[in-house]
Amino acid sequence: MTDCFEKLLELLGGICDLRAAEALLDWDQQVCLPAAAAEGRARQLAAISGVIHERSTSAALGRLLDQLEASCFADDSFEAALVRRCRMNFEKSRRVPAKLVAATALTTGEAHGAWLKAREANDYAILAPHLAKIIELKREYAALFKVKHPYDALLDNYEPGMTTAELKRVFTPLCREQTKLIKAAALPAGEPEPDFMVADYSSSKQLRISEMVVRAMRYDFTRGRMDLTEHPFTTTLGPDDVRITTAVDRKLPVSCLLSTMHECGHALYEQGIDPICFHTPLADGASFGFHESQSRLWENQIGRSTAFWRWLYPYFKKAFPRQLSGVSQKRFLRTINSVRRTFVRTEADEATYNLHIMVRYELEVALFDGKIEAADLVTEWNRRMKKYLGIVPPDDRQGVLQDIHWPLGDFGYFPTYALGNLLAAQIFDAAKKAMPQLERSIARGEFAPLVDFLRENIHQYGARYTGTELLKHLTGSSRIDINPYLEYLRKNYLPNA
Amino acid sequence: MTDCFEKLLELLGGICDLRAAEALLDWDQQVCLPAAAAEGRARQLAAISGVIHERSTSAALGRLLDQLEASCFADDSFEAALVRRCRMNFEKSRRVPAKLVAATALTTGEAHGAWLKAREANDYAILAPHLAKIIELKREYAALFKVKHPYDALLDNYEPGMTTAELKRVFTPLCREQTKLIKAAALPAGEPEPDFMVADYSSSKQLRISEMVVRAMRYDFTRGRMDLTEHPFTTTLGPDDVRITTAVDRKLPVSCLLSTMHECGHALYEQGIDPICFHTPLADGASFGFHESQSRLWENQIGRSTAFWRWLYPYFKKAFPRQLSGVSQKRFLRTINSVRRTFVRTEADEATYNLHIMVRYELEVALFDGKIEAADLVTEWNRRMKKYLGIVPPDDRQGVLQDIHWPLGDFGYFPTYALGNLLAAQIFDAAKKAMPQLERSIARGEFAPLVDFLRENIHQYGARYTGTELLKHLTGSSRIDINPYLEYLRKNYLPNA
Repeated sequence: MTDCFEKLLELLGGICDLRAAEALLDWDQQVCLPAAAAEGRARQLAAISGVIHERSTSAALGRLLDQLEASCFADDSFEAALVRRCRMNFEKSRRVPAKLVAATALTTGEAHGAWLKAREANDYAILAPHLAKIIELKREYAALFKVKHPYDALLDNYEPGMTTAELKRVFTPLCREQTKLIKAAALPAGEPEPDFMVADYSSSKQLRISEMVVRAMRYDFTRGRMDLTEHPFTTTLGPDDVRITTAVDRKLPVSCLLSTMHECGHALYEQGIDPICFHTPLADGASFGFHESQSRLWENQIGRSTAFWRWLYPYFKKAFPRQLSGVSQKRFLRTINSVRRTFVRTEADEATYNLHIMVRYELEVALFDGKIEAADLVTEWNRRMKKYLGIVPPDDRQGVLQDIHWPLGDFGYFPTYALGNLLAAQIFDAAKKAMPQLERSIARGEFAPLVDFLRENIHQYGARYTGTELLKHLTGSSRIDINPYLEYLRKNYLPNA
Repeated sequence: MTDCFEKLLELLGGICDLRAAEALLDWDQQVCLPAAAAEGRARQLAAISGVIHERSTSAALGRLLDQLEASCFADDSFEAALVRRCRMNFEKSRRVPAKLVAATALTTGEAHGAWLKAREANDYAILAPHLAKIIELKREYAALFKVKHPYDALLDNYEPGMTTAELKRVFTPLCREQTKLIKAAALPAGEPEPDFMVADYSSSKQLRISEMVVRAMRYDFTRGRMDLTEHPFTTTLGPDDVRITTAVDRKLPVSCLLSTMHECGHALYEQGIDPICFHTPLADGASFGFHESQSRLWENQIGRSTAFWRWLYPYFKKAFPRQLSGVSQKRFLRTINSVRRTFVRTEADEATYNLHIMVRYELEVALFDGKIEAADLVTEWNRRMKKYLGIVPPDDRQGVLQDIHWPLGDFGYFPTYALGNLLAAQIFDAAKKAMPQLERSIARGEFAPLVDFLRENIHQYGARYTGTELLKHLTGSSRIDINPYLEYLRKNYLPNA
């Protein structure tokens, strides 16, 4: 069996190395690519994806898994976890005909271009026919799997084991409570920002502060780097190469900082994985929701907290003395945490964010229920925005055209953002319980205890355990609980309630 | 046949896309890679090389070539040129057992690390056993081919069709004449540099000037980019993605500029290839020597010329008024063109450069003649340095350890540098003949006529024609001629002779 397992590791290692090349092509596309080279890059990405798909579904891999499943690895051993994960990936990939893979790649490739054009023209009609095709392909994909609800097959790609029924159990009361909450907490429409929020904040100083914070968070620059891009993301090019990207807007004083902390949260997860998982599919997060919990926790539970700003505000004020003259820490914090009804998810505050997700989640379920079609999305989108946020986007660009996910075929992805928020609150509660002094150390800019806690309880395991298993280990229950998050919101946004 | 040819293009396109991924892994390694990620990157490069080798030697490709060779493409058609080139590559790759490929990759991978350590310790003994293994593998490689001299098999990888005999015909008189020339032209040992050559030249200003020149040379930044690295190089990641790298030393006023012009010369070649060649092995230079002729021509024939500095010196002086106060253009030019006997090839001036190549070329021939072994290299190196340049390196780092080529297994590469110098002179003579006003336009900073000439006569063809064919088309003779280069050197360095 040792021989077989060695062979499996070799095969997986080769696939991981090719995936790293794929990730680099993607990173470079978003960070470095010359303007004229986009088309060529799409070809290159398609070529390497083809090779990876071939290797990931090879008969040789199947035979190895058969042999290894017949062996007697202890159920909770690394070996058993790896074989389980490989089998799951293998069966999924094998079930999808190469034709469908190719058609999806082609259609989403074209849809990406159409999305850019539609945004440019501010006209959903340009994207609609492409989206219709993608939805058709995704329905075809879902039909390949034996699941209760077709949407389950899509969710499983981001949140293994997650179902539409479970999401409903979690999201229905969450949506109700959050809608109620923002009715009480949101500023009236048209309330202007105070002057200091619309001042000019030097890009280089913003970047310097972000880098200082990222270093304090113990991001390892010898095993990664930080670059500028348009839409920030984190990528893993290998166990010792986990890269953050960020963006700066001179008019938004904390957007770069919070976005960098968010990405660094993802990066700490990847940098904290036990080397035993390297070069295998276990060198990954437990799920997208768990990954997002790590980014959200740093962005929100830490980055928006009183304790954190007790430490950072003096540095911030020193960097921007003119802009923040006469602005107290308390006022600054209240201002960056004000609740506003806005149209764009990525710019939403933490109190309204999940409601943006609810809009998308409900539309995705309805699409895979067959109740609506691509042509209905504007009407249905706007109706839900009105219902949950009380506002209707003035145009498509600020409505259904804002996200890249659907044109890329990423249906089932959005819910993981809301799950990440919920998990972040559960995990942060567990951390505070384990370390009663946690907020004090944060107020001194000491993040090592928190990083160690996360590494110990989450990061090191990579994908050895499922999200459910990790959650049980952390909180005693394997169920996602909306209350810690709602309590956190109420405490911050309804202090007098 | 059209069907077959379409299939060939598809197959080759896929290989080119994977090669682009390989090139990006390499570019990123030299420009972006985090310190700890080097080992992982080596694995990734090996993985993708493996896939490329597999595809480049596939039975399917062999069958396609068989069928296409039986068809009747006109001898000078694009199709025929492509099939010829593919057959050449295919036969070479097929002849090499996968075992030898893997052993070479492994051995050179280890040797690279040993080379770094040997340089650090300034001790050739650390590298010697690794080099001995590589030489053994390369001898094994050469023995796979039916050639007059084993070294011919290695030369052919860089300069298709080149032979040891032909090199001897060219290099023997060249070496003799250049040795004579520097005896008369070189400054006495220990002659100090004038003060302005050892002043401090701001890195950002040096880079700004280099970028200005590169733009004037019509490098297309929408199809490429320029970054900093330690050892400058140019790489092609796709037809619309040709990247330059450069390096700056605050103590060397023209090193960044000349190095950037050199790399831009390579890049103009790649950016000038006819799109019909894209995604095929014909999107390449005619040979390494021809590629080098383009970089040398811009670095030397242009970058060191009176005409060029008539245009650039005012800008240069404006950028560095303090450093160049009281320094006339004439004195500046004479100084940057002074001839000195130095130990390191990459820092050598153009009058001594080829002699550094002669040392390496003779050692390579002797190694593949079996007359010397890896253990003899220090003695043999130093003996030849004494003979041709009159100096003996004080240590290994400034001697046999200076180049990365041998540890990487690149035997047969060095001669192409000298061939590039010779070709540059022949090509520049042809350009001046075709455009009597050429130097005047250069003195105005107008490079378009020269770029157009090079594009018209060389670049556009990519690898459709051999170097010999191109040379004949340009000069009327297919023979490499040392005289234009020697005349150029004599004119510049022995003006009173």
